[in-house]
Amino acid sequence: MRATLLNETRSISLEEVADPTLILSTDAVVKVTASCVCGSDLWPYRGINEVTEPTRIGHEFVGVVEEVGSDVRTVAAGDFVIAPFTYGDNTCPHCRAGFNSACVQLGGWGSVGPDGHLADGAQAEYVRVPLADGTLVSTPEPPQASMIPSLLTLSDVMGTGWHAARMARVQRGGTVVVVGDGAVGLCAVLAAARMGAERIIAMSRHEPRQALASQFGATDIVAERGEEGVAIVHDKTGGVGADAVLECVGTGQSMQTAFDVLRPGGTVGYVGVPHGDGLPIGQMFGRNLNIAGGVAPARAYLEELRDLVLAGEIDPGRVFDATLPLEDVAEAYAAMDERRAIKVMLQPR
Amino acid sequence: MRATLLNETRSISLEEVADPTLILSTDAVVKVTASCVCGSDLWPYRGINEVTEPTRIGHEFVGVVEEVGSDVRTVAAGDFVIAPFTYGDNTCPHCRAGFNSACVQLGGWGSVGPDGHLADGAQAEYVRVPLADGTLVSTPEPPQASMIPSLLTLSDVMGTGWHAARMARVQRGGTVVVVGDGAVGLCAVLAAARMGAERIIAMSRHEPRQALASQFGATDIVAERGEEGVAIVHDKTGGVGADAVLECVGTGQSMQTAFDVLRPGGTVGYVGVPHGDGLPIGQMFGRNLNIAGGVAPARAYLEELRDLVLAGEIDPGRVFDATLPLEDVAEAYAAMDERRAIKVMLQPR
Repeated sequence: MRATLLNETRSISLEEVADPTLILSTDAVVKVTASCVCGSDLWPYRGINEVTEPTRIGHEFVGVVEEVGSDVRTVAAGDFVIAPFTYGDNTCPHCRAGFNSACVQLGGWGSVGPDGHLADGAQAEYVRVPLADGTLVSTPEPPQASMIPSLLTLSDVMGTGWHAARMARVQRGGTVVVVGDGAVGLCAVLAAARMGAERIIAMSRHEPRQALASQFGATDIVAERGEEGVAIVHDKTGGVGADAVLECVGTGQSMQTAFDVLRPGGTVGYVGVPHGDGLPIGQMFGRNLNIAGGVAPARAYLEELRDLVLAGEIDPGRVFDATLPLEDVAEAYAAMDERRAIKVMLQPR
Repeated sequence: MRATLLNETRSISLEEVADPTLILSTDAVVKVTASCVCGSDLWPYRGINEVTEPTRIGHEFVGVVEEVGSDVRTVAAGDFVIAPFTYGDNTCPHCRAGFNSACVQLGGWGSVGPDGHLADGAQAEYVRVPLADGTLVSTPEPPQASMIPSLLTLSDVMGTGWHAARMARVQRGGTVVVVGDGAVGLCAVLAAARMGAERIIAMSRHEPRQALASQFGATDIVAERGEEGVAIVHDKTGGVGADAVLECVGTGQSMQTAFDVLRPGGTVGYVGVPHGDGLPIGQMFGRNLNIAGGVAPARAYLEELRDLVLAGEIDPGRVFDATLPLEDVAEAYAAMDERRAIKVMLQPR
């Protein structure tokens, strides 16, 4: 089959690799219907994370089950399935508590996992899926093509935006600020709206993203950053600040902004991998500013979000503003790297 | 009247000062029945916080209202009252949300407040109480003498331990670790027990405090610290970790221990003023370890805890293991500084 390799910084290519096969009785092999490029794929692409040898890449996909091992019970050949961006057993204490991203058998796509074998990267034609029962969620029937983009977002960005809102305990009638207007930030706006927030202030300075944020439910757009942006949010909230802030960037500045716009007793739900210099603990202590979040347990939300998508209640697939055939994967990376696209979907022919 | 002065590092004395009087129409003057020495009073006493001039001190007291200003409605002369360790209006948006310690009119005892006047320190015979309606909570009738210690803890340590448990979202049936065996940590054990935690692991290495922790509801005592203590807690929780950790110390080591014993998705409720080097954000993100807390809004819990004390449901006053007359205040500080006492109550004659 063909699979994407990150060869070295800024070098992406589609190459012939070995076809995946069932290795363990709990495996499935899935034929990929669609995958995509994530903001976090850009870190090794840009050289922020070092690449020492050609590496499989991609961790978001939906597809059709090709075959399953003898111990797989919940999915079968022919099923349309959604995979979360990490795999696991969904039965350990952490999974049962809803934190699948801390599964005791956790693994990631594109690398050798705890079972000692490669789980293929998702920007490929096929993927060997370890722990298929714990990992994959199927749809009742094959979805319409128009549903594919929204279902694909459940692999990562929509589940991650949802996690930010859940961890920040967004309430019906509450005031929410979303910091970050990437695909995750936009999905966080959608999550906050779905959870009934009355006021959703999206901090975004890119016009097309502002428009999508508004379509997803943002009631206010703040284009300013830093102290100026903070002052505007305080004006908009009568000097009180937001009940919940969804931090979807992960830089030191974005995290500081999140705390600066939060009301005492409120919670920052954060899902942007922290790249800053730590947290303002003195400010947090003095004003009871709380923080909750981390690597999203996308698996934990899959059934709920799948049903919302299939019922037409949410349409997170609108974050995809470009679709390319898998062989153009290098262009997909370039488009996202140069911010010509918010998020690019890839489809094997 | 006589009031305690911290003159310089390790110099405490009781001195004649001006009698407090009503200054604003929202003031009350309270005759102190009992006050006490707090662990945080030891910081300036020990020179950790600099003392540049003789300063009034003490922020925990109960007493009887002597007189009230013309705009005071909720307390009257003769009422027995409990004061929280900060004062405020109890009407601003932050107070209404339950975070009185972020009140827009917040002030502290023993210093000049937002009204431009001194609010007396509590280790004294009388105190001028600003914003009396927002600050003081009365008892339905004068309490029995045996109730005084427990009511006095509601000023600070019991409200603070309660806050740790609330912010960590202690649940009925849950597993809780309490880090710290000072008066606040012991009250946090009592709070967790009252909230229905099934397993309460107190990390304490001082025998008399271990005994009191057990009496307050701790099911397990772990005397070991650092990695050794962490390993024991993991053994005791089947490798899962605690649902909630109540961090009642504030050092870098105690905070690290708190995160190390927390299960993924759990919350550290912290009330120890942070003196460490920041938070382990990478560990927090990777395992969804959350943190919530800060300066306790003791006022927000006063009515609820008063009723529990008066009903005999909780007896936090047992944290006092010494009582001295106010004129022996210097000895009270020395006893706590030298860890001869957990907490010393002071009574004006």
